Amino acid sequence: MAPQPIDPHALRAFTAAVFMAVGVPAPDAHLVADSLVQADLWGHQSHGVLRAGWYVARLRSGVMTPVAEPAFVIDAGAIAVLDGRHGIGQVLTARAMDEAIRRAKQYGVGVVAVRNSNHFGTAFYFTRTAAEEGCIALLTTNGSPAMAPWGGRTKTVGANPWSVAAPAGRYGVMVMDIANTAVARGKIYVARQQGVPIPLGWALDAAGTPTTDPLAALEGVVLPMAGHKGYAIALIMDVLSGVLTGSGFGTAVHGPYQSAQRSHCGHLIIALNVEAFQPLAAFHARMERLITEIKAAPLAQDAEAIFFPGELEARNEVHNRRDGLVFPEQTLTDLAALARETGLEAALPFPVSSACDTPVPGCRFLR
Amino acid sequence: MAPQPIDPHALRAFTAAVFMAVGVPAPDAHLVADSLVQADLWGHQSHGVLRAGWYVARLRSGVMTPVAEPAFVIDAGAIAVLDGRHGIGQVLTARAMDEAIRRAKQYGVGVVAVRNSNHFGTAFYFTRTAAEEGCIALLTTNGSPAMAPWGGRTKTVGANPWSVAAPAGRYGVMVMDIANTAVARGKIYVARQQGVPIPLGWALDAAGTPTTDPLAALEGVVLPMAGHKGYAIALIMDVLSGVLTGSGFGTAVHGPYQSAQRSHCGHLIIALNVEAFQPLAAFHARMERLITEIKAAPLAQDAEAIFFPGELEARNEVHNRRDGLVFPEQTLTDLAALARETGLEAALPFPVSSACDTPVPGCRFLR
Repeated sequence: MAPQPIDPHALRAFTAAVFMAVGVPAPDAHLVADSLVQADLWGHQSHGVLRAGWYVARLRSGVMTPVAEPAFVIDAGAIAVLDGRHGIGQVLTARAMDEAIRRAKQYGVGVVAVRNSNHFGTAFYFTRTAAEEGCIALLTTNGSPAMAPWGGRTKTVGANPWSVAAPAGRYGVMVMDIANTAVARGKIYVARQQGVPIPLGWALDAAGTPTTDPLAALEGVVLPMAGHKGYAIALIMDVLSGVLTGSGFGTAVHGPYQSAQRSHCGHLIIALNVEAFQPLAAFHARMERLITEIKAAPLAQDAEAIFFPGELEARNEVHNRRDGLVFPEQTLTDLAALARETGLEAALPFPVSSACDTPVPGCRFLR
Repeated sequence: MAPQPIDPHALRAFTAAVFMAVGVPAPDAHLVADSLVQADLWGHQSHGVLRAGWYVARLRSGVMTPVAEPAFVIDAGAIAVLDGRHGIGQVLTARAMDEAIRRAKQYGVGVVAVRNSNHFGTAFYFTRTAAEEGCIALLTTNGSPAMAPWGGRTKTVGANPWSVAAPAGRYGVMVMDIANTAVARGKIYVARQQGVPIPLGWALDAAGTPTTDPLAALEGVVLPMAGHKGYAIALIMDVLSGVLTGSGFGTAVHGPYQSAQRSHCGHLIIALNVEAFQPLAAFHARMERLITEIKAAPLAQDAEAIFFPGELEARNEVHNRRDGLVFPEQTLTDLAALARETGLEAALPFPVSSACDTPVPGCRFLR
């Protein structure tokens, strides 16, 4: 039976209630819920409500603090260093982005380094805000080791995503958001399930040999995007996010999947106030010219259209707001379990599937 | 006959003399010469003295101005906009980097946008300087169209290289410098010469179909690195380098190969003063820990060592300073022609090959 579409507003309210149930203050709970549902609206379910359970597990275990109390370690005009004291990544990053924008409006550029943070969800949730306020913003983060250094075969370097967004006139916002691995690990799981080989360049096996066997790849390491270039970019993002901010770096960073360890991840934000460089209206017009030129190129084989970065997400959002969000059964099962665990079954924005009334391997919150 | 190694000091003096012969002031001529020879020392001959002839052609045609007279359009504390007025890219970028470092020392961060510049050679020639002065520096540039937008089949997006460098304690400097195309066009020429296919993912043919035929690829377009990710990065680098700086962008930017058109390229520099975020000694120690951890990973198949970004270039420099620089015959032929053209034959740092005394197809400066 195909899952029913879910109203994003109801899903957001439910998700916020879940976070409030484990001690997160209402405004912060709504912010985190909004960031997750927004990722779902953009079509990035890997960063959506799917993650709510992981966050709750980390809040319950105490490695992530429900009441964020960030403190300025350095507050020096155009720059600042914020100690997140292990609060929720979204809450800390939203605060840091506000600070960066405020400083950019005053100095032309604002830089905020964040240490001792946590996974913040989708980077462009935050850079997009800055673009909407007339800034170009760069946001970097480090993450738990995901790939080997180039020439190695054990994980020491994170995927370390980074995002840049810029206002783009009638086109809205141009935004890129990139993890530096060749492929999400999930795609290798899918290939294994389907029994098909993976392309060369995705992964090494445990012996450090390039492989097309998904099983061998899962026992080995994922490769960086674009070979040594992706390795270099990922490493530099760790320098900006971890080394410079005074946070963890390299193997000292732990991911949101691990519920028993502090994350120690860090972020760097650089916001540039466009108006300090040229009139904002002129910038918008120039962005429109750039995008119009790109979209006018003749199409490659099999291409239906040329998109600017961020355009597909904006389209997905329109579609998903109109038709509702559709999730795989597993996500609904996990949310239902989360509702039961937090006493919020009545607030669930969809009917509970009978498939999960008894513990089964797929229902990890019921086991 | 194998070419003789050339003394880098003599090559630098000769190259500077060539630029002085076409009206470049001595300090600027030495700077440009140093940047080119330094690229050769690092092992990046594609950005080395090979390019001297192209620069001279642009100076002679008047599209590039020999006496750089940059002017501040905006000079506002932490940020500035510099109009390069079509001076030599290296001269303008060195000036802009000095300004960014000076502002970073005062405000924690310094941002300098450069418009109406020219090709500056190797980006990390400049970011490395900042790292040596205790800063982390980002330098972006745009360039003439080199790839199609994702889904298109005509060139509208430059390779738009960018570099980040950071001080790294006993390891010297960590520096990445990346063009966002999947491959340098030169490698496709090599495949054509050798009659071997190119990997899928390098290029599309003129109809916009992925191809492994080098000839079809040369009639089509090169693809971005990492697929749509490289496209997004390249486009954002154009936003930073061209749209924000008030310079040319998209197809309005012309490359150094074209001697009859103004470049209109732009650059953005962001320098962060490490000492404003944490004690520099602590940062050095943290960078050493990061690099030591990377280098300790067990090796992948066929790998001889794990390098941090910039390490190979530093090794090449040691080797090339000791043994001298070795160039392909074509480069020597071009330099000899340049010497003749500027009346500097006596200053050539190598014996003239008799092969080029008469015009031949390979000797483009003699035709």
